[in-house]
Amino acid sequence: LDKKKILYVQTSGPGEPRKLYAPFILAQIAVDSNIEPTIYFLGEGIQVVRKGIPDKIKLGNFDVLKNVIDRTVKRGVKLLVCSHSMKAWGEYLTPDDFVEGTEVVEASTLNNLVLEYDGTMWF
Amino acid sequence: LDKKKILYVQTSGPGEPRKLYAPFILAQIAVDSNIEPTIYFLGEGIQVVRKGIPDKIKLGNFDVLKNVIDRTVKRGVKLLVCSHSMKAWGEYLTPDDFVEGTEVVEASTLNNLVLEYDGTMWF
Amino acid sequence: LDKKKILYVQTSGPGEPRKLYAPFILAQIAVDSNIEPTIYFLGEGIQVVRKGIPDKIKLGNFDVLKNVIDRTVKRGVKLLVCSHSMKAWGEYLTPDDFVEGTEVVEASTLNNLVLEYDGTMWF
Repeated sequence: LDKKKILYVQTSGPGEPRKLYAPFILAQIAVDSNIEPTIYFLGEGIQVVRKGIPDKIKLGNFDVLKNVIDRTVKRGVKLLVCSHSMKAWGEYLTPDDFVEGTEVVEASTLNNLVLEYDGTMWF
Repeated sequence: LDKKKILYVQTSGPGEPRKLYAPFILAQIAVDSNIEPTIYFLGEGIQVVRKGIPDKIKLGNFDVLKNVIDRTVKRGVKLLVCSHSMKAWGEYLTPDDFVEGTEVVEASTLNNLVLEYDGTMWF
Repeated sequence: LDKKKILYVQTSGPGEPRKLYAPFILAQIAVDSNIEPTIYFLGEGIQVVRKGIPDKIKLGNFDVLKNVIDRTVKRGVKLLVCSHSMKAWGEYLTPDDFVEGTEVVEASTLNNLVLEYDGTMWF
């Protein structure tokens, strides 16, 4: 049987820090469960994987967010960044502005993945 | 083959302006990709299509939100407003309070559409 | 035919009170429509069903949130609380900290339910 695939979509940004850990933690759990996870960063959510930003986020009992991201990448989870969001707010970000392990994709990718994946989660 | 259908659900309102553009942009891209999109406004999200409000929202490189909404309607995207949310916060809004191209529907509609559509997105 | 199942996921907490009523109202409507609903509380969302908190939330024309929760439980809707979120922010909550009718489950449960249910909603 093919692996099931779950898409985790991060639309909230560093202004809502308590919504940032769950996608990474659930994606790592998915790998353990033989599910194929991808995390998609959209709108303000792309700031979560912008170089320098997750290094400064640490909540409660969790590790620094950057370390959580690095472990997630090492587990083989794909991190996709919406290119349309990179120029949305008047900045012109480039792929180099994002942490290692991220891939920039066209805005239309999200529509396609939502139709293709077996489940989606929204944070 | 039948067209695939995506439901975009707006639960955030004008207090989170960076979550407001994506549904309209993705719905327009969906039309280009031969996908049938519908946008559903719920809770605080109904304020996004309330007359007078999107005229005052403009972020970064994006056009005034009202213009984005108008173009989305012209592309044939359906905009549905939850009737239950119209009286939720102590105001009594009527269908006339919403921008052209919106249709007011019963609260139960969302349950039905989520089960019927091929994919959903939550903002 | 088997009943269709909808999973409502609450990721927003008491800081966003206008996002808290919809899952309970839609779940009650689901019961009326012969749909099987479950509400899942994650991250900051677990505070919504923490003893003492929903008693203090009341918005617009809605009843006190605690009363809405109680009616939802009486209709047979399952309320699931993510155990991982209970220790996330430096507190160590126990099942007794949550209102009657809630059940604490492992973090992995969300991945499984998203794949199993016929539709999901995110608040």
